[in-house]
Amino acid sequence: MYIGVDYYPEQWPETRWPEDVRLMKELGVNVVRLAEFGWQLMEPEEGRCDFSLYDRAIKLLTESGIKVVLGTPTATPPAWLIQKHPEILPTDENGVQISFGARRHYTVNSRIFREYTKKIVTEMAKHYGQHPDVIGWQTDNEYGHEKSDRSYGEEDRKAFQTWLEKKYGTLDQLNENWGTVFWSQTYTDWSQIPVPRKVLQEHNPSLLLDFDRFCADAYTSYNKLQTDCLRANISKDQFLTHNFVYTDQAINQWDMAEDLDYVSYDNYPVWGGLAEPVSPSAIAHQHDLCRGTKNGKGYWVMEELSGAQGWSKIGYLPRPGHIKLWTYQAISRGAEAIVYFRWRAAHFGTEEFCHGILDHDGIPKRKYNEVKEVIDSLKEHGDDWIASKYEAQAAVYYDTENAWAWNIQPQSSAFSHRQELLRHYTPAHKLNVATDAVNSRSSLEGYKAVFVPIYFLENPVFTEKLKRYAENGGTVVFSYRSGVKKPNNFVTGQTLPGELTEMTGITINEYESLQTGQQNKVNGVKGSLSGLESAATVWCDLIDPVTAEVLAEYDDCFYKGTAAVTKNKYGKGTVYYIGTALEETMLTALYKEIFQEAGAEVIETEKEVEVVRREKFLSAMNHSVDHPAEIALPEGNYIDCATNEKIKGTLKLAPLASVLLKKE
Amino acid sequence: MYIGVDYYPEQWPETRWPEDVRLMKELGVNVVRLAEFGWQLMEPEEGRCDFSLYDRAIKLLTESGIKVVLGTPTATPPAWLIQKHPEILPTDENGVQISFGARRHYTVNSRIFREYTKKIVTEMAKHYGQHPDVIGWQTDNEYGHEKSDRSYGEEDRKAFQTWLEKKYGTLDQLNENWGTVFWSQTYTDWSQIPVPRKVLQEHNPSLLLDFDRFCADAYTSYNKLQTDCLRANISKDQFLTHNFVYTDQAINQWDMAEDLDYVSYDNYPVWGGLAEPVSPSAIAHQHDLCRGTKNGKGYWVMEELSGAQGWSKIGYLPRPGHIKLWTYQAISRGAEAIVYFRWRAAHFGTEEFCHGILDHDGIPKRKYNEVKEVIDSLKEHGDDWIASKYEAQAAVYYDTENAWAWNIQPQSSAFSHRQELLRHYTPAHKLNVATDAVNSRSSLEGYKAVFVPIYFLENPVFTEKLKRYAENGGTVVFSYRSGVKKPNNFVTGQTLPGELTEMTGITINEYESLQTGQQNKVNGVKGSLSGLESAATVWCDLIDPVTAEVLAEYDDCFYKGTAAVTKNKYGKGTVYYIGTALEETMLTALYKEIFQEAGAEVIETEKEVEVVRREKFLSAMNHSVDHPAEIALPEGNYIDCATNEKIKGTLKLAPLASVLLKKE
Amino acid sequence: MYIGVDYYPEQWPETRWPEDVRLMKELGVNVVRLAEFGWQLMEPEEGRCDFSLYDRAIKLLTESGIKVVLGTPTATPPAWLIQKHPEILPTDENGVQISFGARRHYTVNSRIFREYTKKIVTEMAKHYGQHPDVIGWQTDNEYGHEKSDRSYGEEDRKAFQTWLEKKYGTLDQLNENWGTVFWSQTYTDWSQIPVPRKVLQEHNPSLLLDFDRFCADAYTSYNKLQTDCLRANISKDQFLTHNFVYTDQAINQWDMAEDLDYVSYDNYPVWGGLAEPVSPSAIAHQHDLCRGTKNGKGYWVMEELSGAQGWSKIGYLPRPGHIKLWTYQAISRGAEAIVYFRWRAAHFGTEEFCHGILDHDGIPKRKYNEVKEVIDSLKEHGDDWIASKYEAQAAVYYDTENAWAWNIQPQSSAFSHRQELLRHYTPAHKLNVATDAVNSRSSLEGYKAVFVPIYFLENPVFTEKLKRYAENGGTVVFSYRSGVKKPNNFVTGQTLPGELTEMTGITINEYESLQTGQQNKVNGVKGSLSGLESAATVWCDLIDPVTAEVLAEYDDCFYKGTAAVTKNKYGKGTVYYIGTALEETMLTALYKEIFQEAGAEVIETEKEVEVVRREKFLSAMNHSVDHPAEIALPEGNYIDCATNEKIKGTLKLAPLASVLLKKE
Repeated sequence: MYIGVDYYPEQWPETRWPEDVRLMKELGVNVVRLAEFGWQLMEPEEGRCDFSLYDRAIKLLTESGIKVVLGTPTATPPAWLIQKHPEILPTDENGVQISFGARRHYTVNSRIFREYTKKIVTEMAKHYGQHPDVIGWQTDNEYGHEKSDRSYGEEDRKAFQTWLEKKYGTLDQLNENWGTVFWSQTYTDWSQIPVPRKVLQEHNPSLLLDFDRFCADAYTSYNKLQTDCLRANISKDQFLTHNFVYTDQAINQWDMAEDLDYVSYDNYPVWGGLAEPVSPSAIAHQHDLCRGTKNGKGYWVMEELSGAQGWSKIGYLPRPGHIKLWTYQAISRGAEAIVYFRWRAAHFGTEEFCHGILDHDGIPKRKYNEVKEVIDSLKEHGDDWIASKYEAQAAVYYDTENAWAWNIQPQSSAFSHRQELLRHYTPAHKLNVATDAVNSRSSLEGYKAVFVPIYFLENPVFTEKLKRYAENGGTVVFSYRSGVKKPNNFVTGQTLPGELTEMTGITINEYESLQTGQQNKVNGVKGSLSGLESAATVWCDLIDPVTAEVLAEYDDCFYKGTAAVTKNKYGKGTVYYIGTALEETMLTALYKEIFQEAGAEVIETEKEVEVVRREKFLSAMNHSVDHPAEIALPEGNYIDCATNEKIKGTLKLAPLASVLLKKE
Repeated sequence: MYIGVDYYPEQWPETRWPEDVRLMKELGVNVVRLAEFGWQLMEPEEGRCDFSLYDRAIKLLTESGIKVVLGTPTATPPAWLIQKHPEILPTDENGVQISFGARRHYTVNSRIFREYTKKIVTEMAKHYGQHPDVIGWQTDNEYGHEKSDRSYGEEDRKAFQTWLEKKYGTLDQLNENWGTVFWSQTYTDWSQIPVPRKVLQEHNPSLLLDFDRFCADAYTSYNKLQTDCLRANISKDQFLTHNFVYTDQAINQWDMAEDLDYVSYDNYPVWGGLAEPVSPSAIAHQHDLCRGTKNGKGYWVMEELSGAQGWSKIGYLPRPGHIKLWTYQAISRGAEAIVYFRWRAAHFGTEEFCHGILDHDGIPKRKYNEVKEVIDSLKEHGDDWIASKYEAQAAVYYDTENAWAWNIQPQSSAFSHRQELLRHYTPAHKLNVATDAVNSRSSLEGYKAVFVPIYFLENPVFTEKLKRYAENGGTVVFSYRSGVKKPNNFVTGQTLPGELTEMTGITINEYESLQTGQQNKVNGVKGSLSGLESAATVWCDLIDPVTAEVLAEYDDCFYKGTAAVTKNKYGKGTVYYIGTALEETMLTALYKEIFQEAGAEVIETEKEVEVVRREKFLSAMNHSVDHPAEIALPEGNYIDCATNEKIKGTLKLAPLASVLLKKE
Repeated sequence: MYIGVDYYPEQWPETRWPEDVRLMKELGVNVVRLAEFGWQLMEPEEGRCDFSLYDRAIKLLTESGIKVVLGTPTATPPAWLIQKHPEILPTDENGVQISFGARRHYTVNSRIFREYTKKIVTEMAKHYGQHPDVIGWQTDNEYGHEKSDRSYGEEDRKAFQTWLEKKYGTLDQLNENWGTVFWSQTYTDWSQIPVPRKVLQEHNPSLLLDFDRFCADAYTSYNKLQTDCLRANISKDQFLTHNFVYTDQAINQWDMAEDLDYVSYDNYPVWGGLAEPVSPSAIAHQHDLCRGTKNGKGYWVMEELSGAQGWSKIGYLPRPGHIKLWTYQAISRGAEAIVYFRWRAAHFGTEEFCHGILDHDGIPKRKYNEVKEVIDSLKEHGDDWIASKYEAQAAVYYDTENAWAWNIQPQSSAFSHRQELLRHYTPAHKLNVATDAVNSRSSLEGYKAVFVPIYFLENPVFTEKLKRYAENGGTVVFSYRSGVKKPNNFVTGQTLPGELTEMTGITINEYESLQTGQQNKVNGVKGSLSGLESAATVWCDLIDPVTAEVLAEYDDCFYKGTAAVTKNKYGKGTVYYIGTALEETMLTALYKEIFQEAGAEVIETEKEVEVVRREKFLSAMNHSVDHPAEIALPEGNYIDCATNEKIKGTLKLAPLASVLLKKE
């Protein structure tokens, strides 16, 4: 398998390069990503290309047997280009033009920028497209990151209008689909339509959702422009990828991935200003998204954190063990190549405090040794591990459009789309049930249960799949505020939960938005929930069961005694509805019952322990920094792939330990 | 009496209209407000008017006996108009031009916009001005709401300069009245004067106060332009109103109301993002302002909340009982017509989550039934109730210019004008003393006591009235920080409390601004305050009594022992001065003593219970969601107007219950 | 000595002037500062100068024996000038042009503004330059205050480019020194270089530091333009000064002071919105900076707070005693003249609530009497006191460029440059060790110890001085995060602490940024630290001692047992390294040991008591508002300079008392 580093030869004197390559070889590195911010070096003035620096670096690396992934450098248009065409710069929602001086300073809607993109990508592709040791290409870098997903300038506005005309054909269609009769917003000319710049109140939610779709499509088409230029000039052996960020920005990774061979992902469980890493389940969910984006295909971690990170603020220092832990977690969940960010911390620039395998002094120390231990531990079994099958038992719905719709209208000050999504993902992670991230393009066949948390923007295609799935015996779990919105971001005219009414066997005739700090109470009244209590936060759907049975009720306020959680037989299957945000204990109990009834295997472990089984492989990671853990292994004899020790029965894990076992 | 709904026929298929009208009739609705955002429908392109949609809707409604109030649609200039004249759009204090895409996107100073306003209002007036079932008109909608009160563009600046020239005549006058000698701000040409756009420090407070006055005047003249167009074309039987918001914005409701027949008000005790309703006294105070704006005349609640409200964030769900409670409270305090907002929640647009009597599914449920109960309960006695006289025993000063002056210079991080105003209003509300909101235009005759809280911007006309009132035996109560400012927003050169010195019998030679979290202590030393203690927050005036007696003293800091609350004989009357923000308990004790000495009737009730007496009618509202209450009724036999039950002695009120009694 | 007031005759009717002058004389005032915001009065229209108002005021004052310091009025360009040349206005980082309407509304890079400055300053210098009672000049007012230090307009950008060209000569030099190879920022034309306007991420830290240097240089050259105009026209007997603010803004007081005769300082220990004064050591440190700016020369307090201050928000009311306390503290630490701000509170303008010796009513009261007491107390010994020598035993490093570098990259959300600086200054202040503020220009001779806290931006000249100093027997104390940055704001390529490695006898191979609320623990293991514990916050350097001995260790996390505080012999001297932010108790114990070993005299007093010895004078100030204190006096007989009482042994101080003793 490929394990490598992100390397910036341009940031170091060439006299240092041989030492860097020697240390990389010693470490066991077999791939390096290069050049993704090197536009100025490759085209120092308009039209004159000069690849000599990277040629020399690539020669040195490949002569030592290290393969290369090249990044196209379009995330950093050079100063000469911005000087000539300042109209390339993006514009914020107040109309402020963003300055040159950092990165991602272009609007993807600039036709001029697309021309310059074509030229540099084509030149690069021609130069390196047949190089036998260049194995792949990364387009640009982290599309949409740092609020670069939305731009509000004049050219963006025109492109939005064109996109809308293509989508709707007629203004009547647009007006009807946006409900512009509200507040006299009816458009009588395409050119009247604004991008959502500052208003005194709030924009039309249908416009906002279409603007997000437009921004995402613009990036998809921009990426396709790059992949077209590349494919026209490179060898079929070279793959194409992009290093995605999954943070609800206006990017559609699923669409874009259709033009790519691989998904890549930049895995930073902790970043500048964060006092501790995000939760194990939050990291795991991102890996599920990566794997799900190309329907289960293995992906690259193109940037895997190796030291403390941050720009002007540095975050939590990863502890000894974290490098291995997060690497093992990534591979467990589907990564098939790991590239550590970055080889060495830079002496200059905005990312000075993005620490790497080496720190500023360039001397191998603890982190270098840890990475070496990881690479060594994977030498024998790494290839088999990544080739083994990840078999999910449950599916968790994630649709980027649903996230956008929530962000446009969070409806409660306590609501965070990511937090509520993770609330419903975490029990499965805690119970070590292997999950997939699915959306309307996915097949639901084979899953024991499908979770559809906060299914606000109802997708008719997916709803239809859910119905078929449940009718045929599947288990479906919905949460509060599902079935509310139509694809054009209208509220449904049906009684809630709208299209899900029959499946869930309930109606919802009232609901309450709870603000930060507010709560109701819930009592379990049936099955494993009996006797359990939980706070109810964020949102309360007041459920009127029609055919469903009640599992839990509210215990306070005028709706005390009203159903809060229900279970309904639908066809041969079962459909749950969770009407409020429950605490982890009750929610985990509920999900455990759901899994067990659905026949999904649950592996109960201590808090913060993660276990993933892939065919003969079982990986175990203890995310706790201070508690050791014991795991009751499933039946069989195992060997520890790193030590070749035999293990049976109980596996002991020190804090932050991660282990790969193989069943004999 | 009129009870109705806000209806947007344009937002629903015409095929639904008959069902809506049928349900309205069943409910007992006799009036509907229409069309206030319908410009685009009425003038789909420049100069072409088409009233057919509203004609059809009005026909259907009026054929069922429902009357109509029409809104002029100027709060939502259509896209075609903004496309042709983008200079109509307002500008924020950073110079950012506000975008089309929401509402209130015009500056009232745009001469072009005034021309377009004239045209559409005149056309509408001609079309509906003689319609026998159109009973009145609402101009525009919520002037100044959502920061639309101030605009900082080039045309606003010119209008401000013209307004100043008219006000001051000469630059010398302006320079003297603004103190421009400070920081070399002397203007030598009218065109030099800025609107208060972003500066590195803070603007001249006299400029800021005049800018607020200018903004308010601009809206008043804009409204007059509308009322002139209307009156020239409509029947004398049709009334004119505007639905005000009372939130210290730069609008002068008192000036504007002179051009209107009625005041209207939009009553939302809770809104998006709020975890609970504002306090009962806060709602009551707004009603006092409505009634006071036209000197006691009954007013319309043009939008009365009927469900949970909010744009992208939804607020607290009104409990069963709240609709009746807030309706009864409104009528008790002077509303003579109630229009519920809104008939049905919209499927689209920014206000999707403004819930109405019907929710998105259009099916009558709990809220429909509650409104029906309210309407039914008012059938027999509603007309008599609104015709009965509201007789205030006490007056509370409120002057919008005083509020502006406070907002310009809050002087303490702990100071909120609204909070301090309510601090001094709440005891009267709690003691069920009927209050009026008065200002310098009001007569003080007949009041037992007059409260003048935080009388920062001293108004010479009102001060003179207060002197006459006290001399003749009246009781006046001032609070901290009174008498500080002259009408041109200069600090007085007299020793504090300036013009109030003789009345109060004190001087103030030092004071301290307390910041959020800071406090001193106060001990009561006389009368009903003896033995009581309170925290002193926000502000401490160190009072030197001259002729006044001391009721309470500070108990901490270098001014321990200094007077904090005083009482002075002035003429035949009594004048109190409260030098610091006291806690509710001590303040209520003080006000109770004041009321009792002044001969005002106090009705002591449990917390959150409100009682209003109007001639033979006594209404009682229990604002508590969980505590029942008992009220000792004033002597006499009563009947419950809803049930015809006889009641005497004690009235029991369930949580959120509201009752109308009539004395036999 | 000079003791006076800031007087604005233009803000009062001339009929009041004689009374003001009479009261000043009665108070004992012998100097007045005038005219610093009077441009419009002195040049009411372009080219026409009229000094008559100030002529009359000066005549009245000087006839009473009061001397005058004149301010040049350039902080407030008049309306006519801005009307003619709006391009003078500064621009914020979003490109918003700042409006006329307050003060400091010019960019120092405007060539046009520099022309107008020349004219008015020259005219004023010609008019008053030979006046026998005008003793000095203040240029402008508080350069850089209120974010006026940085402007981001087109003319600023051109000036920045010119400054860079002068600094670097070639673009290659600039590109290399900024590391522009990072993110393709290489500049190929000077005109491409931006000022740091809004970007989507963060600017290059080397650009940011140079931008701060450029802004500071621009102000220095602007000030020199003023001093050149003045010196060309005034008598040699008149001094030049500027009233500095020391708040890390982009101003280099040390550079600027080279063109001035005196440093002045505006001493406001409390300001608008502050609930209490800043700490005694924070005030003391500012005085050290003032004295240090011209290498120990006495300075003027040009504005000494005399009442509660603030613009729209008023701060804490200085208690009886504070005026004397802060005056005595100022003189103790080097002020040789005190000018109270302000004579009387204005009735108008932004500074209405800047209270003075007189309040708005103009009647002498408590504050007047307190100032009188201060002036009287200084009559006999004041001149001797200010002539006595302040002999610092310890030096504390402060470099404004270091502060800028920290502000550009604080590295932890818990890091505030000022707070960490004061953390290391406070122990010396608490132990009453006389300190100097030093930087790379200073000589270190004679100091018992030199503290170099948070020496992030390592200055090679100063490092070299430290080495020589330590080699020759001096004691040096470094803190966490020292030696990290090169002058061009690159991170050093050496192992940390870089150039300090040999001196400190340690290396630092790992470190952790702690965020707000996070902490580790430290145990003392040697010397006076043995047995002491402290929280470790903000930052943890993991120290590997080479030749150093360990004084304290971390007690938590994976680096438990790692050195946190070390001590190293270097040459004949001793070098300490403090690797984390310790609590005051442990840090004071450590510093006490350091002082005692270094032979510096420590005077231990109760909390908040400050003692300063200058030759025969010993001043003692009790900053506590509620605790009396006792001080064990150094041997000898003293007289109290105010009362002539004899004192020996123990000095008793009431809360807020301040006393000047003279040793017999």
